[in-house]
Amino acid sequence: MWILIWGEILSRRFAIIGHEVPAKGGFSLNDLSGSSGRLDVLLRAVNSALFISHGIREDTQIVLHLEGAGSRRIKFDGKSLKGVHPDERSIAGQVRAVTKSQIPPVGVWQEYSRGIAHSGGSIGETLQEWSQEGCEIFIMDANGTPLENLSFGEKSGFVLSDHKPFTNAESDLMCNFESTSLGEKWLQGHSCITIVHHHLDRH
Amino acid sequence: MWILIWGEILSRRFAIIGHEVPAKGGFSLNDLSGSSGRLDVLLRAVNSALFISHGIREDTQIVLHLEGAGSRRIKFDGKSLKGVHPDERSIAGQVRAVTKSQIPPVGVWQEYSRGIAHSGGSIGETLQEWSQEGCEIFIMDANGTPLENLSFGEKSGFVLSDHKPFTNAESDLMCNFESTSLGEKWLQGHSCITIVHHHLDRH
Repeated sequence: MWILIWGEILSRRFAIIGHEVPAKGGFSLNDLSGSSGRLDVLLRAVNSALFISHGIREDTQIVLHLEGAGSRRIKFDGKSLKGVHPDERSIAGQVRAVTKSQIPPVGVWQEYSRGIAHSGGSIGETLQEWSQEGCEIFIMDANGTPLENLSFGEKSGFVLSDHKPFTNAESDLMCNFESTSLGEKWLQGHSCITIVHHHLDRH
Repeated sequence: MWILIWGEILSRRFAIIGHEVPAKGGFSLNDLSGSSGRLDVLLRAVNSALFISHGIREDTQIVLHLEGAGSRRIKFDGKSLKGVHPDERSIAGQVRAVTKSQIPPVGVWQEYSRGIAHSGGSIGETLQEWSQEGCEIFIMDANGTPLENLSFGEKSGFVLSDHKPFTNAESDLMCNFESTSLGEKWLQGHSCITIVHHHLDRH
């Protein structure tokens, strides 16, 4: 019983913004780094957030923010996700299926398939929801406080951009949250997620 | 001039073994996690070894070991690699093209395209070559010495398996090298590479 409660409370969350990834209408699975607005960056983020070599991190969620031609959020929840393989094309197949359906109202999370839900809205709504749910929020930023100098509570959420920097509007929304850095190099998003996981696994 | 010499000497190397990845004859780009013997694991390793968000790690090489239906090694060298995108399908396209050509003799490295060379042979040959080139070798192993307790010289090489453990024959070849651990969880290969890079970047 104690383990169940513990598992319920501890959680890690990641949010990544795909500034040019189409929010609707689908895309070609054969050109994930081109015409789909660098969706490949988000797919690798899903992989590194949720998969270990032979299993899934059940304590972790990741929310993709698709901001090309509309705004849609897609949440992958490790606790209930089934039937998704860790390769880019497999994850892309799930994302494409979701983008062919209607965008739900802002703030309404509709389950699409097991462990995958979607909603209207952008990073502002995600930050608001996470705050209301007691999640402490950290913005990944090369100029932030080094990760190893921070301490983390039961629910920690990390916000990343894709290959582009945050927009001014996004930065304004995030300016009141702690920012954290992994060093001077601008690493790929999924690499940042891996390093955060490793740090939290060890501390 | 000093920078050039420094860049020449410092280097990081990764070797990953794909126990079931076909060494010849090509494969479908649409099924990288299935009929190609979990090539997807190796592709993500190439991504995490060589790519940062907006550039390539010029000090890094990775050698893929394709051990399905023959033995071929494919080396990606960050110093000279051109025209490869970081997504799985793009890297897979390069690997597929190589696997359609004849396997060179063991120990003979033939350049296939800029920054990509291939050779016959298996991990035994790679370990021998690295040793001769003054590279200190570390085997990634959950039971090894914690990474943070080790020190690293100018040329460090790290050996990983794919989704399968090392075979007994491979373990025998590696038993005289230092082994290093990233913790108890069996992480994905590309995640291990990311954590090693991050550690070396910081120390």
